[in-house]
Amino acid sequence: MRFSRLLVPTTKETPHDATLASHIYLIRGGFIQSVGGSGLYNFLPLGKRVLERVQRVVKEELDKAGCQEVSLSFVTPASLWKESGRYEKYGKELLRFKDRKENEFVLGPTHEEMMVNLVRQSVKSYKQLPLNLYQINLKFRDEIRPRFGLMRGREFLMKDGYSFHADECDMKREFDLMEETYKKIFNRLGLEFRVVEADSGAIGGSGSKEFMVLADSGEDTIVVCDACEYGANIEAAVRKEKPCEAEAPEALFAKFYTPNTMTIEDLAKFFRVDPYYLVKTVAKKALYDEGRSQIVLFALRGSDELQEVKACNAVNANELVDVTEEELAEIGLVAGYMGPTVVPEGVRVVLDNNLKEATSMICGANETDYHLVGNSFKGVDADYKDLVAVQEGDLCSCCGAPLRYTKGIEAGHIFQLGTRYSEPLGCTFLDENGKAQPMVMGTYGIGVSRLIAAIIEQNHDDKGCIWTRESAPFDLHIMVSNIKDEAQMALGEKLYETMLDKGIDVLFDDRKDRFGAKMKDYELIGIPYSIVIGKKLADGLVEFVTRDGMIKEEIAAEEILSLVEERLC
Amino acid sequence: MRFSRLLVPTTKETPHDATLASHIYLIRGGFIQSVGGSGLYNFLPLGKRVLERVQRVVKEELDKAGCQEVSLSFVTPASLWKESGRYEKYGKELLRFKDRKENEFVLGPTHEEMMVNLVRQSVKSYKQLPLNLYQINLKFRDEIRPRFGLMRGREFLMKDGYSFHADECDMKREFDLMEETYKKIFNRLGLEFRVVEADSGAIGGSGSKEFMVLADSGEDTIVVCDACEYGANIEAAVRKEKPCEAEAPEALFAKFYTPNTMTIEDLAKFFRVDPYYLVKTVAKKALYDEGRSQIVLFALRGSDELQEVKACNAVNANELVDVTEEELAEIGLVAGYMGPTVVPEGVRVVLDNNLKEATSMICGANETDYHLVGNSFKGVDADYKDLVAVQEGDLCSCCGAPLRYTKGIEAGHIFQLGTRYSEPLGCTFLDENGKAQPMVMGTYGIGVSRLIAAIIEQNHDDKGCIWTRESAPFDLHIMVSNIKDEAQMALGEKLYETMLDKGIDVLFDDRKDRFGAKMKDYELIGIPYSIVIGKKLADGLVEFVTRDGMIKEEIAAEEILSLVEERLC
Repeated sequence: MRFSRLLVPTTKETPHDATLASHIYLIRGGFIQSVGGSGLYNFLPLGKRVLERVQRVVKEELDKAGCQEVSLSFVTPASLWKESGRYEKYGKELLRFKDRKENEFVLGPTHEEMMVNLVRQSVKSYKQLPLNLYQINLKFRDEIRPRFGLMRGREFLMKDGYSFHADECDMKREFDLMEETYKKIFNRLGLEFRVVEADSGAIGGSGSKEFMVLADSGEDTIVVCDACEYGANIEAAVRKEKPCEAEAPEALFAKFYTPNTMTIEDLAKFFRVDPYYLVKTVAKKALYDEGRSQIVLFALRGSDELQEVKACNAVNANELVDVTEEELAEIGLVAGYMGPTVVPEGVRVVLDNNLKEATSMICGANETDYHLVGNSFKGVDADYKDLVAVQEGDLCSCCGAPLRYTKGIEAGHIFQLGTRYSEPLGCTFLDENGKAQPMVMGTYGIGVSRLIAAIIEQNHDDKGCIWTRESAPFDLHIMVSNIKDEAQMALGEKLYETMLDKGIDVLFDDRKDRFGAKMKDYELIGIPYSIVIGKKLADGLVEFVTRDGMIKEEIAAEEILSLVEERLC
Repeated sequence: MRFSRLLVPTTKETPHDATLASHIYLIRGGFIQSVGGSGLYNFLPLGKRVLERVQRVVKEELDKAGCQEVSLSFVTPASLWKESGRYEKYGKELLRFKDRKENEFVLGPTHEEMMVNLVRQSVKSYKQLPLNLYQINLKFRDEIRPRFGLMRGREFLMKDGYSFHADECDMKREFDLMEETYKKIFNRLGLEFRVVEADSGAIGGSGSKEFMVLADSGEDTIVVCDACEYGANIEAAVRKEKPCEAEAPEALFAKFYTPNTMTIEDLAKFFRVDPYYLVKTVAKKALYDEGRSQIVLFALRGSDELQEVKACNAVNANELVDVTEEELAEIGLVAGYMGPTVVPEGVRVVLDNNLKEATSMICGANETDYHLVGNSFKGVDADYKDLVAVQEGDLCSCCGAPLRYTKGIEAGHIFQLGTRYSEPLGCTFLDENGKAQPMVMGTYGIGVSRLIAAIIEQNHDDKGCIWTRESAPFDLHIMVSNIKDEAQMALGEKLYETMLDKGIDVLFDDRKDRFGAKMKDYELIGIPYSIVIGKKLADGLVEFVTRDGMIKEEIAAEEILSLVEERLC
C-alpha cells in the first residue's frame, strides 16, 4: 500500500481524555477515531488492518481446535433475557430498548442466551455433542464511565465462544483445550501474559481462568509466583498456610478489661502478642435481590486482610457495603469490640479457613473496652470460608516460593459454566438412554478490541506503538527520504514491487513530506521493520530499522533483500 | 470439514412464514436460523461460510480498485443525524434510543453522517483527495414488516462505501470505476444481473444506478432492452418518443358538450380519435414536511400512464396521495372533466414532456360534461417533466428495439451524492487556492446478506440451493454411501485428505445416516460438486455429481482426481 493513498491522519495532539499509552498512540497514529467522546470508536484503515490480523490469528487457532464459527444477531429479543433471569439482574450496562411496535430488545453485551437458544433449537441428541460455537462480533455495554480508549469502550469487538457437552467431564476436557488454544493465540500475538485463577462466584459455575496481559497500566492486580506457573486474580488467589514464629499468648478463657483497643495494632500492643493470635472481625451489610439485606461478621486472623470479593461470594450476596456504628448498635453489636463468639441472634458469622484449628485466640467481647482471651476454634462447627487477601511475600500454595503482585489487563476469560443457562432455558439433549438432560456448558471470551489496546500497553516506547509481528498493520515499511531523488525513488519502487511479489504486506511511504515528519510517523505507527532509503544511497547504502529499540543497521542496497528474508520470513 | 462434526440442522419443515425459495432453503438447509420471528437471523456455520466467501469477493475487488476498508461504530450519536436533518425526516425505520445517561443514539441503517464526520475530522486538503472508504458491517432498519428471510431483515450485513472528491468530474470518474468494480463482483459471484438507471429524486444527487439480480421473485419491476444494454428501474425508465399513426382530430379551438365522458376510453369513443390526442389529467395531493400539502394536476397524453414516483419527484414531495371528488370541488375542480389549461388559481400543474410540442389536443374544460378541443401546447411556457410509465413494447431510447419488463432484486446501488451531506455537516477541504469547498461525494452499497438470498433466488431447483462457485460454503462434497463399508470409507478418507492438501474446501459426509437422507441433504445444501462413493466401488467406479441439473457421471475411481482438477481448478 502506498502511504500517499492511505488515510492515516496522524497527529501530534494527545486527546484530552487520554492517559494510557494505547489510547494516546492509537488515536495519534490514526488507527482509531473517537465518535463524539462517548466510548464509541471508528476503526480507520490502519486500525482495521490490525483488527483483521488479530482476528485472523484468533480464527485460525479456534478453527484448528475444532470450533465452528457462527454469527448471531446483535439485537436480541428481551424475552430470552427474561427466560434466563438476567433481564432484571443485569445492571444498567444492559442496553434495553423498544422497537416501533413496542417489542422489547437488548443490545447483546454477551450472548449466552442467544447461543443457548440457537443450540436448543438445533441439537437434540448426545450424538450431536460436543459442540463449540464461536463468533467474533460486536458487543455493547452501556458503561457508566467508558474510558481508556479501546480498553473500556461501550461498543467493542469480542470473540465469544460457547461449548455444549453431555457431561461435566467432557466440558472440562474442552476447557483445557481452550486454555491451550488461547495460549497459542496469545503467544502468536507476541504477548507476555499469565493464565490466572479467577473468581467465579458471581456468575456461578465451578472454575474460571483469566488471560492477563502483563502491563503496568493494567487495572487488575494479579498474584504471581516466579518460581512456578501459579498465578491468580487477587480475588481468587490462595497461599500456603501462614505460620507464626511468635509465641502464642498463654491464658485460660477469660474476659479482660482492654481500654482503648479498637484496632488490631492497639490490641497487639496491649497484650504484647503477634496479630496472628488476634481475631479481626469485620462487619458488612450484604445486599441481595429485591432490596433484602443482612449484616454479616467476617472473622479472620489479625495478621490477615479481608478480601471483599471473596467475602461477598462467601455469602452469595450481590454486593457488600459498609455498616455504620449506629446500625451495629441497633442490632446489639459494639463497634471496635466485636468478636465472632459473642453475637446477637440473627447475625450471620463467617470464619476464615485459617481459624479452623486456631487456639489461644483473642477476640472482641462485644462490650466496650473488653476482649476475650483463650478462645479456641478447634472442633467448633462453623461456616468456614476462604476470606483472606493474599499479600506480597505470602508463600505459593504450589511450590512454597514467595508470591508477588503484578498488574495485568484481562484480555481473555474461560469459564466452566455448567448448567447455569441450559437449565432455565431448557437446553436439553436425549442421552443414550433416551432421557432428557441439560447440556453442560463452557464459555470462552477474548476481548478482541481490548486485546489491541493491551498489545500497545505492553509494546510501546515514548515515540509510539511497537506492533508485534502478527498484530502489525503491515509487515514492513519502506521509506524514501527524498522522493525527488530519482535513484532513491527508483529503488523504493523496485523494493516495494519485489516485497509485494513475495507476499510481504508493505507500507511504502512515498509522500512528499520532510524526512523528519515521515520518520516521526514511522515511529508513531510502529511497523516492526523499515527500510530507509536516503542520502547514503549514493554510497550504495540503505538503512534497516528495527522498530523495537529503533535499532538502525546500515547495509549495502543489494543485500537488503536477503536481510529482509532473514528477519521477516 | 467432516459433516459429522459440523452443526448443520437440516429439516424437512418449511417455516410457516416463508414463501420465497431462498428463505425456505436457507432455513431448511441449516444456513440461517430465525430469532423469534422478528426479522433477526443467526448465521449458522454453513451460512457463516457463505457470508465469508461473498465478503471475500467483495473485499478483494474493492481493494483492487483502491478502496480502503474501515469499520465504523454501529451505534451512532443522534447529534450527527440532527446535523444532516435526517433525524426528523427519516421515518420509523430509524431506531432511536437513549443510553443510561439519557443521551440519544441511533442504530445505523446507513452511515453517510458517520462517514462524513470521520472525513471532516481527518481530511483538510485537496492533496488528500480522492478517497474511497468502505466497510462491511451490520446495519439495522426497523422495518414495519420484516419478511422474506434475508431479503428484508431488520438487522443485515451491508457493504457501504463513500467516496470524497474535489470536484464533480472526479466523483463521476469514481462512480464509473465503482460500476465496473461492482460488475466484477456480481460476475465473480456467478449472477445474472442488469445495471439499471434508478430513480434518484428522493435522496437528491444527480445520478444513480441499481444492480438488479434477475429473478422471477424480485420485488422490483425493471425495464430492459434485449437488443442493447439498456435497463432501468420502472421509476427511472425512459423510452423513445411515441409516434401515432392515427390521424389527429381536426378542429379549431372550441368547447364541446361531451356527456358521460369521464374516462379516456369514453372520450376516445365519443370523438372517434386515438387516445394519443387526448390529455389525461390526474389530480394528486402532494405531501411535504411539517404537514404542508398541495393539490397538483399531472397532465399527459391519454395513451400514456402516470408513473407516480416520477410525479412525486417532479414536485419534490415526500409522498403523493389520492384526492376525493369533494376535495377537488372545494378548490373548484370538477372530477372527470379536469384539464391543464383551465385551472383555478393556486393549483399547480405539471405537464409531461410528451405534451411539449403537442397540437390538436382534447382536454377537460373543468366543467361537467364539457371538453375543449383544438388545444396546442406549442410554445406554451409551462412546467414540463417526464411523467410517463414506460410500458412493455415501448421502444428503447438507445437503440429503438422494443422494451420489456422483467423482475429483479436490488442487491447493489451506486449513487452520485454531490454535496447533500458534506454541506450541512461542513465537510470541506482547502482547494489549490486555499479556499474551503464542500467535498463532492459518491456512495456505493451492496446488501451482502440480501445478496446471499438473491443468489439462491436465481440458483435453486425444487430440491434446494445451487450455489455458484465463489459463493458456495464448500467447493466440493464427498459422500460415503455406507460408512461401514471399509473400502468405501478408506477411499473417502483418502480423497478427503488429498483435496484438503490441494487447498480445496471440502465437506466430507462421513455420517452414519442412510444414503437417501445424505443425498437429500446434499441436494438441499447445494455444494456445486459431489463425489459419491457407493456400491459400485466394488467395480472400481464412483459417481461425480454436478449439483446444477443433478448430472451424474460414473467414473473410474482412479480418474476422479483429474476430473476434479478439470472441473474445479
